[in-house]
Order: sequence, then structure tokens, then C-alpha cells
Amino acid sequence: MSIRIGIVGYGNLARGAEASIKDNADMELTAVFTRRDPSSVKINTVGVPVLHIDEIESFRDKIDVLIICGGSATDLPVQTPKYAKMFNVVDSFDNHPMIPTHFENVDMAAKEGGYIGVMSIGWDPGMFSLNRLYGTVLLPVGDTYTFWGRGVSQGHSDAIRRIEGVKDAKQYTVPVEDALRRVRNGENPTLSTREKHTRECFVVAEEGADKARIEKVIKEMPSYFADYDTTVNFITEEELKRDHAGIPHGGFVIRTGKTNGGKSNHVVEYSLKLDSNPEFTASVLVAYARAAYRLYKEGQTGAKTIFDIPPAYLSAMDGATLRKTLL
Amino acid sequence: MSIRIGIVGYGNLARGAEASIKDNADMELTAVFTRRDPSSVKINTVGVPVLHIDEIESFRDKIDVLIICGGSATDLPVQTPKYAKMFNVVDSFDNHPMIPTHFENVDMAAKEGGYIGVMSIGWDPGMFSLNRLYGTVLLPVGDTYTFWGRGVSQGHSDAIRRIEGVKDAKQYTVPVEDALRRVRNGENPTLSTREKHTRECFVVAEEGADKARIEKVIKEMPSYFADYDTTVNFITEEELKRDHAGIPHGGFVIRTGKTNGGKSNHVVEYSLKLDSNPEFTASVLVAYARAAYRLYKEGQTGAKTIFDIPPAYLSAMDGATLRKTLL
Repeated sequence: MSIRIGIVGYGNLARGAEASIKDNADMELTAVFTRRDPSSVKINTVGVPVLHIDEIESFRDKIDVLIICGGSATDLPVQTPKYAKMFNVVDSFDNHPMIPTHFENVDMAAKEGGYIGVMSIGWDPGMFSLNRLYGTVLLPVGDTYTFWGRGVSQGHSDAIRRIEGVKDAKQYTVPVEDALRRVRNGENPTLSTREKHTRECFVVAEEGADKARIEKVIKEMPSYFADYDTTVNFITEEELKRDHAGIPHGGFVIRTGKTNGGKSNHVVEYSLKLDSNPEFTASVLVAYARAAYRLYKEGQTGAKTIFDIPPAYLSAMDGATLRKTLL
Repeated sequence: MSIRIGIVGYGNLARGAEASIKDNADMELTAVFTRRDPSSVKINTVGVPVLHIDEIESFRDKIDVLIICGGSATDLPVQTPKYAKMFNVVDSFDNHPMIPTHFENVDMAAKEGGYIGVMSIGWDPGMFSLNRLYGTVLLPVGDTYTFWGRGVSQGHSDAIRRIEGVKDAKQYTVPVEDALRRVRNGENPTLSTREKHTRECFVVAEEGADKARIEKVIKEMPSYFADYDTTVNFITEEELKRDHAGIPHGGFVIRTGKTNGGKSNHVVEYSLKLDSNPEFTASVLVAYARAAYRLYKEGQTGAKTIFDIPPAYLSAMDGATLRKTLL
């Protein structure tokens, strides 16, 4: 029998999860739940119902794992604990400073319900976290560097869009090649924020807007841009649509370390180059939905992060097949 | 209290484990066990005894985890099951076709003894296996490529040394740059053995040996060299010592895959660049020794591979600290 998946929300991440489920033969999509009027939401899977979120509780026996595709700012802190009382859940909570609090809330709720709550899944937090952990334990004498990009930062794009006179914008985070080179060389450099990443902005200005002012406001925006070398390119709406429609992202986790009392150097590098950030993130969520289901079937309960889950639980293959084909 | 480690054997891998233990504050080396005359073995840790392997059983209460540093051909198939009846053990068994059999033997022995037997730990099998698994589950529609090198292959170096007229030799396995480039481009190429790696040999010939014959024997050697573009360089013994004393290695696991019904491409790459193959392998063994100890303390028993072990078990940090600092 397939693992029956429910999806909460229907934005980019949810659509990515919907597509990913089709690539996993042991899973099926049971329903999509939305806060909107369900009749206004058209999904890509024939025969699967879209229901109002208020109906979700009646699906307790019909869904094995719920993939919650809300935002980390206001949705997930409420939704994940709420639904972890009724379902095994997986979320992509990515507000790093709030992770300990979210863990406590999800853990309490999931234990109350007798379910598994897998949280902060994706690639950062997620696969990048995992590689930071493996790097640290395999080379305890060393340094870990995380670089992001080249890719679209939704948060920074939104920050530009909020500036008066801006019609639309896309912001790319770009790792500095020279910093990457120095890290890979094992130089163990201390890198400032400015030395690690640059920010490239593509901005569509409203007609008659003061472009010089917009550029100045962007470049001086605290925490978002002021600490970076930022380039602002004004383009037309057509150019934005034509050249910047995608949501690519990626990055690098590099651990450099020494063994044998400092005599030998080693470099471990993990990198992602993603055409679609939400689709890859969703693929990770779907794999961890399988793990959530397995852990639940074993009788485990509570919150789990990517650190807590044995890799084998992610695969539909059994242990013997994994050992034979992938070890 | 520290995790008390015993080491079986005292070759390159064992010396790497000895050094790595010093970099892990929660561990201590208790004893080294050897088949040789213990008085002939000088180790690098002051105050730690070297004992004959026959004395090992009397250390059952003094050692938490035994790191078995034998060879995969004849040592580990015997030693790992034997000692898994008396200790938690970790080995680096790397004879891929024999992994299922070794797993069964270690599993039975470890369960009989009530211990944990972690097997096939290192980087391939090991971290590369793990990245093949993660790649497969995160991008189920895709292809996985493993490249090795540039690094020294002991097996191929030994094969050259066995040729008549060869005094000494080092063989480097080198990934073909163009193949790597095509894989990273998402071309999903079907690559022959010859297209993936080349082999570079550095050979010291005996005085008066027929170098042309040696070169021919190397290049035509079945499975070792015949299927590869092989270069043979004759050098002096001094040059071999000066330029080829190290045991560097490394490689790449690349997963390329598609999401959203083939519309988006993604590339996940994991790479290692190691000054010392045995020292890094030993570092991985030591981290998994910690995991073995934790699993044992939980009451688990039996054989485990890198696929079965939750990443958090590798770290000396507790869950809350891991979530706060690395997630």
C-alpha cells in the first residue's frame, strides 16, 4: 500500500511536493488543504480533492503524513504543532534562531498526538546542516564554510519591492569566487560578510521614479544590503519576465580540516546547483515524509530533525538492497 | 568519562585512528593489539600499552569500542565477526561484492555478543555511499556518478610491483575532467570505464630490466589497466621517494536529476580532496566508534552500516546544541 500524503497549502513549495510525489512510486497524494476557497485552487493531479483546511481533521485515518508548506514567519509556528497532534508531519521551518523553540513546540504536540514531527527539512536548514554536522565530526580540527548562491533570495527581493517607486525586483545572492578559492585551498580564511557574498539586484522601476534614490535606498538598507557589495540593474518588466522568471538557487558547504596533528589537510565539499529552489526543497520534504512514516510505524513519536533520522529510512529500498546497490 | 577505544592492528589506518582519537576530547586510546611481537611495535601515544592480540578478551570490561584496522581480503572477514562477540566494533570492510555476506556474519556475531558491529565505514564505502543514497532519494529521477581520484590506488600499485623487473611503483587513479564536466552539465552521459578515469603509473625498474616489456605488461593487465588509458612513467627510486611518498586520494559523487516532470535540472555534488587516505578513513571510523557506543548504550545490537546510523549519534554535542549551532 502506498504512503498517503496530504499537503497543506498550495504555493510553489506545495506544487513542488505534488510533482515530487509522482516521482516516488510508493507514495500517493490524498488531498490538498487550503485556507482559500477550495474551488479557486486548481491542482496538477487529476482526481485528488482540494479541501478547506477546516476539514483536515476528518482525514486523520486517510493520511499517513502531512507535508506542511506554509511560511516560517507566521504559518509554521502555528500549523506544525497544531497538525502534529493529528498527523505525522514534515515542515521546512527555516527561521534559524527560532529552531529551538519550534522544536520544543513540535515535540510536545507530536508526543501528545503519538505522531512524528519532522521539522526544518530542505537544504538549508536540511542537507547543508547535515553536511555541516558530518564535516564537524569527521574533521574535528577544522573550519566549516557555508556559501549560498548563485540564487534568488525571496526575502531580499521582497525587501526591494517594498521600496517606493519599485514595481518589481529579483535579487541574486552570489558567492565570491575568490573566497571559495581560498577556502578550497585550505587557507582557513576569516571572511567578513562582504567577502563571502555579493548581491545583484534587477529592478523594474515605476515610470518616472527616481532611480538614483532607489539604488541608494537599496544599497544602504541595513542587514539586507549595507554589509554587501551590491549591484543594482534597472531593467524593463519584459526583461524581468524573460530573464529572471526562475527561482534557481544552490550553494556550498565546505569543511577544511587537518589530521595527524596538523600534518595532513583535507577538503570536504558539498554543493547544490538547483534550477528550482522550491522543487528541490519539496523533494527533500517528500523523502523525509517517507522517513516520518517509517519512524511512526516503529512506534516512535516526537519532533525529529534531519540529524535524528537514519539515512536508510529515506529510501523505499530495504536494507539488503541498499547495502548491495549503494554501499 | 571518556569513550575507551581499542585498536586492532598498527598499520597506516591504525596510526590514523590513533591520531584522530587525540582530536576527539571525549575519547581515549586504551590499548593497541597486534599479531606481531608487541615489543617490536612502537606507537605514538605515551602510556598506552601495545599487547598481543591473544590478550584482547581480558579487555572486555576496559574497552567500549574496538576499531579493527585489518585488511578486507583476509583479516576483516575473520576478525570483525570474532571480536563483535566480545566488543562493540567498527571496521572499514571495503570489498563491495562481499558486503552482504560480511553483514550477515557481523550481524549474527554482534547479536550473539549483545554488541554493535559497525561495518564498511570510511569514504567509499562510507561517505560516498551515503551521498549515493541521499542523491537517489532526493532526486529519484536522475543518475548517480562516482569518480575517484586523483589518488593513489594501493591495489593497482601492488599489481605493478608484482611484475618482474619492477622494484617499486605508485599508481594514481585520475578522473577524466571532460567526463566530470559533462556530468556536472546535466548531460547524463553513459560513460565507459575508459571515459571516466585514467591511470598514471610511476615505476622504478630494476637495473637492466626491459622497460618496454614492463610497460606492455602493465598496459595489458586485465581489469587493472587494460580498460583504461594508462600512462607509465619510469622514474628513479629517489624521485619516487621525493615526489610520491604520500597517500592522497579523493573523488566525487555527483547526482544529477530532474523535478517537475523533467522541467527542472539539479546537480548535487559531494567531493573529497584528501592529503592522506588512511588518516581521513580513520577519522570516519573514530566518529562511527562514538555512534557505536551510543547505540550500544541504548540497548541496540547487531550489524549497522553508515545507512543505519542517525547523524546526531556521530557528534559529542547533544541534540539541543546541534540544533542551535549546526541546523
